[in-house]
Amino acid sequence: MKAEVIIIGDELLNGRVQDINGSFIGKSLFEIGISVEHICLVQDEKNSIQDALKSAWARSEIVFITGGLGPTEDDRTKAILADYFGKDLLESSDAIEIVKSHYSRIDKDWNPEANHYHFIPDGFEPIENPKGTAPGLFYQEDQKVIFCAPGVPKELKAMLLERFIPILKDKFQLSASLQQQVVIRTKRVPEEKIFNEIVPTLWKELEKFGKVSSLPHIMGVDIIVTFSGDQNLKNEIQKKVINLLRPTPLFDSIWQFGNDSLPEFILKRARKKNLKISIAESCTGGLTSSRLTDIAGCSDVFVGGAVTYSNEAKVNILNVKKETLESFGAVSSEVAKEMAEGAIKTFNTDVAVSFTGIAGPTGGSKEKPVGLVGIGIASKNKSMSKTYQFYGDRESLKLRFSEKGMFSLLSLIEEV
Amino acid sequence: MKAEVIIIGDELLNGRVQDINGSFIGKSLFEIGISVEHICLVQDEKNSIQDALKSAWARSEIVFITGGLGPTEDDRTKAILADYFGKDLLESSDAIEIVKSHYSRIDKDWNPEANHYHFIPDGFEPIENPKGTAPGLFYQEDQKVIFCAPGVPKELKAMLLERFIPILKDKFQLSASLQQQVVIRTKRVPEEKIFNEIVPTLWKELEKFGKVSSLPHIMGVDIIVTFSGDQNLKNEIQKKVINLLRPTPLFDSIWQFGNDSLPEFILKRARKKNLKISIAESCTGGLTSSRLTDIAGCSDVFVGGAVTYSNEAKVNILNVKKETLESFGAVSSEVAKEMAEGAIKTFNTDVAVSFTGIAGPTGGSKEKPVGLVGIGIASKNKSMSKTYQFYGDRESLKLRFSEKGMFSLLSLIEEV
Repeated sequence: MKAEVIIIGDELLNGRVQDINGSFIGKSLFEIGISVEHICLVQDEKNSIQDALKSAWARSEIVFITGGLGPTEDDRTKAILADYFGKDLLESSDAIEIVKSHYSRIDKDWNPEANHYHFIPDGFEPIENPKGTAPGLFYQEDQKVIFCAPGVPKELKAMLLERFIPILKDKFQLSASLQQQVVIRTKRVPEEKIFNEIVPTLWKELEKFGKVSSLPHIMGVDIIVTFSGDQNLKNEIQKKVINLLRPTPLFDSIWQFGNDSLPEFILKRARKKNLKISIAESCTGGLTSSRLTDIAGCSDVFVGGAVTYSNEAKVNILNVKKETLESFGAVSSEVAKEMAEGAIKTFNTDVAVSFTGIAGPTGGSKEKPVGLVGIGIASKNKSMSKTYQFYGDRESLKLRFSEKGMFSLLSLIEEV
Repeated sequence: MKAEVIIIGDELLNGRVQDINGSFIGKSLFEIGISVEHICLVQDEKNSIQDALKSAWARSEIVFITGGLGPTEDDRTKAILADYFGKDLLESSDAIEIVKSHYSRIDKDWNPEANHYHFIPDGFEPIENPKGTAPGLFYQEDQKVIFCAPGVPKELKAMLLERFIPILKDKFQLSASLQQQVVIRTKRVPEEKIFNEIVPTLWKELEKFGKVSSLPHIMGVDIIVTFSGDQNLKNEIQKKVINLLRPTPLFDSIWQFGNDSLPEFILKRARKKNLKISIAESCTGGLTSSRLTDIAGCSDVFVGGAVTYSNEAKVNILNVKKETLESFGAVSSEVAKEMAEGAIKTFNTDVAVSFTGIAGPTGGSKEKPVGLVGIGIASKNKSMSKTYQFYGDRESLKLRFSEKGMFSLLSLIEEV
């Protein structure tokens, strides 16, 4: 069964807004065993939308359209669908019901002058919008279906999970044999070194289990094997993959067999050992704390963080010594060490990680260039720190610093 | 001149990775006056890539392809291009030069066994990769061009800005008459209320100046007018748009005529008034500090932040009173107030904003549901706070809380 997504919006093509709906739909359908084979972003323009619809309807059984259902004049998805399928755009009593209920949810009355939400193409079904006011649409012809949702991500997400996926499961009797993945997450070794030097037979060996893909990340490579099957088969294949890798030099670079993000994995490992974490950040500006707190339930492990951008804040909150700052400068291994030690004391935690560096683009010098970072880790009774040199723009340096420090923290957690 | 982007990678379609290259290419080309009209994400699969290439080459003058140039077996872009254009895949001495220089940059020797980077389709030109080892490609036929870059975002970004755009500017003699935008950024009023209730004539009035689009955001709506012209025309239209809006009730909801993000705008306004900022975060977990420090040069305004996830941290670092925590609970207007006041003192800043809330999905109760947040603002001599109720998942609640607090901070900065 082929699925495809059409995403409408000028703002997504001129880079004003980053589309996230395509990826969300891809992920949600993958989880129920449906592959999205195309995601096409097109302008708010009749011909472009029509052409995309024509291609999609010809090659895919399931078509999602997001965008163009709102109240403004560039919202023309319904008119284009009506035109394409030779239907009239009609007032629908079902749609009126739904729209009225959307408005009553936000304590408002709807009236037909407010918008044209109650007009839908004849033969289409209006779909309740759990998080907004414009209804979605569903249409079936022979064995093919179309779903339309507004482009606002929170509305799309809710409508997909609460309305569209139940319809899909019902219509297509999705089998229990879902797509499974075995994920090997490595760090610090470039893709070509893995496949051409360290384990040249790896790709071919893994292909015996399923489709192989390799995915370079900011600080490592994920190697993914995808296949159809149940949880038992997944466990079996995962065991075989681990046995295949254990004797190779790559094994030491693998930090996880599984799908957890680095923050999730750190929280799980720390929770298992009953360790509390704090974080001292300068150049990363709170990014590391924010990434840890993106994970629900982090509060039993994560106590807090200090974002000490100024030297005064480093001294006042983390007890970094003025002399250390003067002798070595804020971006130094020495200051990183005192920041990590300070975080342990200030937040009374078992482990801490610290960051002090230059994210640029300004602020670098010959001795201390942009991309230099001091990273410290500390537990109650020991601490260590080191400087590293990374490359990239401000945003990617913040992320690299954060990632590197999280790996250091993870090693510390495994040791404690 | 029509441009189009083909993005290759299974991981982008199954939601494992969020594509960011399409948006970056769209934005970068928009800035030099070229419209990207399609962005198509396709699987690492020969037929899909061929079909996408066929459509793109038929309808667009400029085609970008990202992905499939790496060293692994699913990297098949070059073979598909050679096949499509009826060329042989040949060893290229130019490519060998370029690849050797890439490797020498990272202090390594390249040899032909390491990968097939030196094979390129006959008639294609290898392009230097400023941030990686695999070369890009350039091809011209009649008045059409193709550019290929690796999918790793930092490599794509550098290659686009440093290699492809200079080639484009050279080949197409881009005129000085670029696309301009007047941007009206509003807060707190839903899209349909703006266009159907508050200023029903707005869309039609704005259309006199150019193409209008409306873009709902997490806490407001951006209204954008796009037209061709120089800076003078932009200034003139902007003035007319402001005059058009000034007498309307929408004017009070406009927080900016321009393109700055909220963190950028806050930093600019604070810098103008010579104010230092600190931030006290609980539920937002460092997100607000991280967003401010994403902006280069923030250090003259932003002093630091405290991420006080636990009650102890709130007491120890921000001097929140234990009694206040006990009487009102951590998520309360009272605690938010003391957190903001504490931040002013701890970081010795002129203004501060604080956040204490429940981002969920667990931790809510009947009295204090998920989505409740206390936001405080303080200056040296006054402080105030309030609770708000928002809705959404953990990630969007963190962002909503942060956005709301930033607007409160902005109001405070404008007042001080």
